[in-house]
Amino acid sequence: MLMADSTKRRELQVDLGERSYPILIGPGLLAEAGNLFREKGFPLKAPILLVADAAVEARYAPTLEASLRQAGYTVTRAVVPSGEQSKSLEMFDELITAALEAGLDRKSTVIALGGGVVGDLAGFVAASYMRGVRFVQVPTTILAHDSSVGGKVAVNHRLAKNIIGAFHQPEFVLYDLDTLKSLPMRDVRSGYSEVIKHGLIWDADFVNYCDERAERLLALDPDSLGHALYEGCKVKAIVVSRDERENDLRAILNLGHTIGHALEAVAGYGELLHGEAIAIGMVGSARLAEKFGYGADIAAETERLFRKFGLPVRIPGGYSTDAIMAAMMHDKKFSEGKMVFVVPKAIGEVEIRGDVPTEWVRSIVEGLKEENGV
Amino acid sequence: MLMADSTKRRELQVDLGERSYPILIGPGLLAEAGNLFREKGFPLKAPILLVADAAVEARYAPTLEASLRQAGYTVTRAVVPSGEQSKSLEMFDELITAALEAGLDRKSTVIALGGGVVGDLAGFVAASYMRGVRFVQVPTTILAHDSSVGGKVAVNHRLAKNIIGAFHQPEFVLYDLDTLKSLPMRDVRSGYSEVIKHGLIWDADFVNYCDERAERLLALDPDSLGHALYEGCKVKAIVVSRDERENDLRAILNLGHTIGHALEAVAGYGELLHGEAIAIGMVGSARLAEKFGYGADIAAETERLFRKFGLPVRIPGGYSTDAIMAAMMHDKKFSEGKMVFVVPKAIGEVEIRGDVPTEWVRSIVEGLKEENGV
Ligand SMILES: NC(=O)c1ccc[n+]([C@@H]2O[C@H](COP(=O)([O-])OP(=O)(O)OC[C@H]3O[C@@H](n4cnc5c(N)ncnc54)[C@H](O)[C@@H]3O)[C@@H](O)[C@H]2O)c1
Ligand SMILES: NC(=O)c1ccc[n+]([C@@H]2O[C@H](COP(=O)([O-])OP(=O)(O)OC[C@H]3O[C@@H](n4cnc5c(N)ncnc54)[C@H](O)[C@@H]3O)[C@@H](O)[C@H]2O)c1
Ligand SMILES: [Zn+2]
Ligand SMILES: [Zn+2]
Repeated sequence: MLMADSTKRRELQVDLGERSYPILIGPGLLAEAGNLFREKGFPLKAPILLVADAAVEARYAPTLEASLRQAGYTVTRAVVPSGEQSKSLEMFDELITAALEAGLDRKSTVIALGGGVVGDLAGFVAASYMRGVRFVQVPTTILAHDSSVGGKVAVNHRLAKNIIGAFHQPEFVLYDLDTLKSLPMRDVRSGYSEVIKHGLIWDADFVNYCDERAERLLALDPDSLGHALYEGCKVKAIVVSRDERENDLRAILNLGHTIGHALEAVAGYGELLHGEAIAIGMVGSARLAEKFGYGADIAAETERLFRKFGLPVRIPGGYSTDAIMAAMMHDKKFSEGKMVFVVPKAIGEVEIRGDVPTEWVRSIVEGLKEENGV
Repeated sequence: MLMADSTKRRELQVDLGERSYPILIGPGLLAEAGNLFREKGFPLKAPILLVADAAVEARYAPTLEASLRQAGYTVTRAVVPSGEQSKSLEMFDELITAALEAGLDRKSTVIALGGGVVGDLAGFVAASYMRGVRFVQVPTTILAHDSSVGGKVAVNHRLAKNIIGAFHQPEFVLYDLDTLKSLPMRDVRSGYSEVIKHGLIWDADFVNYCDERAERLLALDPDSLGHALYEGCKVKAIVVSRDERENDLRAILNLGHTIGHALEAVAGYGELLHGEAIAIGMVGSARLAEKFGYGADIAAETERLFRKFGLPVRIPGGYSTDAIMAAMMHDKKFSEGKMVFVVPKAIGEVEIRGDVPTEWVRSIVEGLKEENGV
């Protein structure tokens, strides 16, 4: 029973017509990359660029590469320094150079091995190199259950996060759970922030599951972890399938991100982890719900849950409210100057509101600051 | 009669389903931009970024902006230094900054006012800013009858031309013939190189038209010019409509570009104009036709025609054959290491060949060098 659980594989499909693709979740998948590439008809002659996060390269790239080489592929490795700072145009430029030097052609593939940083960065390289080549995501963080699905790829600009990017779907997502064992605890917690987000926007039962299993999830118990990533990916896949280009529905995935992105920008990329920033942002959105007359328990529940996962729920000291508000104004979720927010109506249900007064947001930001009480 | 001709407007449609768009060709169109934006439902509240080539900015941006402002739009101008050097990631970064500072949101529009350089660069900004905003082309060169249609946008990398880019179709193309009056003669000639290319790949009658009207075309006689741009755009529009993403047919538009792009890269971007480089490249392709057993007259005819338009047909002194060959290897038209060329079978008809021996190419490049005789 335990044996069966810990070797269990899960599979999901992202339905996007011609661009549909599978998400494979389970242990031991790195070693099967070669077979998968063959099965899916990736051409043997087209060189592959493997873009790996420096923190995972030595541990996992050799297994992945060996599998691809054994299947007959040519692979060149490019290593990216860990951290949000790497999601820059400079690093993008370096990877384009690496792709050229590795002789990548129009039939080539770019693989991202790492968390959301490498996924977003390598994905934008895949989207832009020769106007688009194949892309495969091999996520190695919990957070990347979110970033590896849905085709949003981007780099940051010093004035705003993810402002330069594209929609470029992967050919498949290969989620080897074994790679998560080396993930630092702070990143484990940060990753669960997006997992819980998927519950908060779509599925109250799944929020309960996370609540009840918090300890096991944080300990990376294989079956709980596999289930949570599967459920998180499932919500993401459903939403993306219905609205790939964020014309309407997809925007609900931005719960907590308006304040979250602003905090990341103001903190300096990398100070606050993405999952941490959006946890604070989700508490902010829940407080907005209260202002709109929805239950006050939403904010209390949201806060309790994030605390249980060891995530921050207050804005760390020293950030200026003006700077945070200014960063929000640069955020792309503002259309035509109005403030748009994803607001919870209950746990597991959200709505998109385009009528949020700036003053409400400012007072919530103010109230969330550590110095104003915990 | 003369009056009627010189004020004549022509209109064409690029058929791409949901992404279909019109090309308007005629005098006096700059002043109608505002009305067109209103007609096509561009939202008034979303700021517009006008990206203008430094050489045309002072002359034409005021008319365009006045028209847009009068219609109620907010426009911010960004000026790009003239020349191929501006098709760089650095300039791209500067324009993203300008877009952020101008407050562009997801409903905004980027307008390119200039030739192919500004069109390709601003187009990549429009494709990437917030993962894609609206784009309008206002071409001011003859060459841009080609670059403004079809949605290929890109910047260069020091190792290869157009290597970083996207497919991003404009909402419309506004071709105001009055702007061409200030175009330097060298750019007039360079532009006709792509006009003639459209004849060479698709329409022998149009090649004859260009041949017979060469003098009037070079003098920018309004009716001849309007007709030639219309016919050139028409060939481009037909080809792009049938194969937007260059899976097969669209590759014929690359006639002369494999050698041409290599020459541009080796010369240092901007030394040889794009139209000049591909004129030489088209002579090279015609010589390749001979090797494949097609009529020897193709090369002679091609050469005669380009000479008539004052275009170069030989590689200027001092470029190394090895460097040219190496640059071709980086060119994205090579798939899986084979040499692919567009080869004329007759004037007005081409085929794509994937079996071109490197040695043939090398000997043609060698034979085209000025120092080896004119
Ligand atoms: N594209 C999308 O739809 C989307 C969605 C959510 C988040 N994101 C982006 O994702 C990024 C955050 O992703 P992230 O949290 O994965 O960050 P990350 O990629 O920086 O990874 C977190 C840290 O863990 C390290 N690491 C990664 N895998 C490891 C492993 N297996 N063992 C040991 N260390 C490992 C990394 O070096 C890094 O220090 C942000 O840039 C965010 O904007 C994108
Ligand atoms: N995207 C495509 O499908 C496509 C197709 C063909 C060419 N291109 C690209 O187009 C570029 C070449 O285009 P181009 O020849 O228009 O070059 P360009 O944009 O550099 O313009 C040529 C010169 O004319 C000047 N100029 C432009 N309009 C003027 C005017 N009305 N009056 C006076 N001066 C004017 C410019 O400052 C420049 O010096 C190349 O980068 C090429 O790769 C792209
Ligand atoms: Zn996120
Ligand atoms: Zn061209």
